[in-house]
Amino acid sequence: MTTSSSAADKIRAAIRDIPDYPKPGIVFKDITTVLQRGDLLQQAIDLMAAPYVSGLSRPDIVLGVEARGFIFAGAVAARLGAGFVPVRKAGKLPWKTRKVSYALEYGEDTLEIHMDAIPEKAKILIVDDLLATGGTVGAVVQLIEATGAKLLGASFLIELEFLKGRNKLSPLSIHSVIRF
Amino acid sequence: MTTSSSAADKIRAAIRDIPDYPKPGIVFKDITTVLQRGDLLQQAIDLMAAPYVSGLSRPDIVLGVEARGFIFAGAVAARLGAGFVPVRKAGKLPWKTRKVSYALEYGEDTLEIHMDAIPEKAKILIVDDLLATGGTVGAVVQLIEATGAKLLGASFLIELEFLKGRNKLSPLSIHSVIRF
Repeated sequence: MTTSSSAADKIRAAIRDIPDYPKPGIVFKDITTVLQRGDLLQQAIDLMAAPYVSGLSRPDIVLGVEARGFIFAGAVAARLGAGFVPVRKAGKLPWKTRKVSYALEYGEDTLEIHMDAIPEKAKILIVDDLLATGGTVGAVVQLIEATGAKLLGASFLIELEFLKGRNKLSPLSIHSVIRF
Repeated sequence: MTTSSSAADKIRAAIRDIPDYPKPGIVFKDITTVLQRGDLLQQAIDLMAAPYVSGLSRPDIVLGVEARGFIFAGAVAARLGAGFVPVRKAGKLPWKTRKVSYALEYGEDTLEIHMDAIPEKAKILIVDDLLATGGTVGAVVQLIEATGAKLLGASFLIELEFLKGRNKLSPLSIHSVIRF
């Protein structure tokens, strides 16, 4: 996998560290410096989509979470020939929704999906830019489990391993391109 | 252009009208019913990207506006081999930004772009799902004009012709796949 490693290394080198954002002591991984380069955007999408391009692991639907998650999820869906379904913050979707609330560090947040967005027995892939504590993805998993669809797994550009989101989401299959 | 017309007709037929959303008297064009079908998503991206696939009209950067605009803009960037740059609401981007405020029906809103997002002389394409009054895109045009980059135009899935956004944005080159 020399090519993949090399592409992942180039993407890693292009990520911008922003110290003390969004608050003191946190180093934010800014991926806009990856996205703005056409060659790196292509490689990021290829690497995120790679495990899901064929056969039984190919999704019918790629699910993306507002707002940054939409960028990769839309592009990965197009790459895989799958449909795209948005998961949004409360009150943003125009049709009837299924909701789930989940705990944040302070307080809670609510995510919604359209009631008719997921066909029965559809194979679903969750795509997001970053796996941190896994709180958001855990909420998305709950939304999907209520539909009877088959969840293939979740694909991320970046995984912050020290936050152990992968353990929290177990037994969900997790794919990440770059790990810190 | 039989193929294109036919694909555009299928997309048009899949758009869901939601009456009285977000307020009484407005018919909202819900595109989630297009996005969730892999075949229609592909065709939508192909038709939005078509005028920009080659030569001098090929962009270096595709610009998308939070949040729904990210879905198509990321996918069109990937289709064209271009980079993607996000335009976000105030306070969402982690690095130094250039800002623009613009009038809404009630009050005003602010959009931001990273200071270093647009290389000098880059060719830029704006991609969004819907052209309505043109207020948001007009603000994005102001952000780009301040950078010295070359704006190729703006591509939309849907144009609400009766709101005359195209006139407001003149002389910007506008491409839309479906018009109401």
